[in-house]
Amino acid sequence: MIKKNDEQLLQEAINEAKKSVENGGGPFGAVLVKDGKVISRAGNTVTRDNDPTAHAEINVIRRGSTLLKTFDPKGTVLYASCEPCPMCLGAIYWANIDRVVYASSRDEAAKAGFRDAQIYSELALPPIQRNLPHSHLPLPERKAPFNNWKEKEDKMPY
Amino acid sequence: MIKKNDEQLLQEAINEAKKSVENGGGPFGAVLVKDGKVISRAGNTVTRDNDPTAHAEINVIRRGSTLLKTFDPKGTVLYASCEPCPMCLGAIYWANIDRVVYASSRDEAAKAGFRDAQIYSELALPPIQRNLPHSHLPLPERKAPFNNWKEKEDKMPY
Repeated sequence: MIKKNDEQLLQEAINEAKKSVENGGGPFGAVLVKDGKVISRAGNTVTRDNDPTAHAEINVIRRGSTLLKTFDPKGTVLYASCEPCPMCLGAIYWANIDRVVYASSRDEAAKAGFRDAQIYSELALPPIQRNLPHSHLPLPERKAPFNNWKEKEDKMPY
Repeated sequence: MIKKNDEQLLQEAINEAKKSVENGGGPFGAVLVKDGKVISRAGNTVTRDNDPTAHAEINVIRRGSTLLKTFDPKGTVLYASCEPCPMCLGAIYWANIDRVVYASSRDEAAKAGFRDAQIYSELALPPIQRNLPHSHLPLPERKAPFNNWKEKEDKMPY
């Protein structure tokens, strides 16, 4: 599914990635678009912000949501210079984004030294089989937050 | 692998989840621990912050990294009231966190109305097979950011 302006908007995401490298950030960029208009644009600011979550896609979702004054920026399209990593793709699902358009693949990111493909493989495994140690301690008290949530009448579902 | 104090620290994450519900947030909490000391603690602030990425785990990683003045908070353990979703687990890998300890499972989150398990299933599929439309446009210019990154002598890898 390719739409009018996809190529131009994706080129803008690539331009953000180039600017990001010039500014000392990682080689990734993204733009968030609604009704054909760019809402937010960003590069990767992990090292600049001391924030391992500050990937370009997370940055455009956070800024775009703030600007749109919503935690649910549905009806938007995210253009990314590279296939989103699992963290960013997870954020894209939570943000109810309509569509993702990307240029480089996770394997091209791997050739540039980034772990995206490796993290995708880890996430597909059951917790116990991952390289990262996971401890599952099902304390009885674990049910309280969900029960309180279900009972709360004025809750804001998301 | 269960360690001394795991139960008490996990209980603190559950307490954050309960506080979060009281404060109008989602029913999730986390604490980030280094050398046995709590560095940061947080609940889910998605709806309060208009930020779909503001899960408890993302919040403790961001705050902890800021406090530790690093984009690489390695040597830490993350305690979460519920199994981290793919976004948060991706963040945990990028943050080089040593270990994850959690109480509720993704299936228990599903019973409380959250999409964690569904998003895990989507991420495990090739992009073209997902319910979320993906368009892969390998524009020739896509290689420029990675090439510029490789050539940059004073880059900060992460």
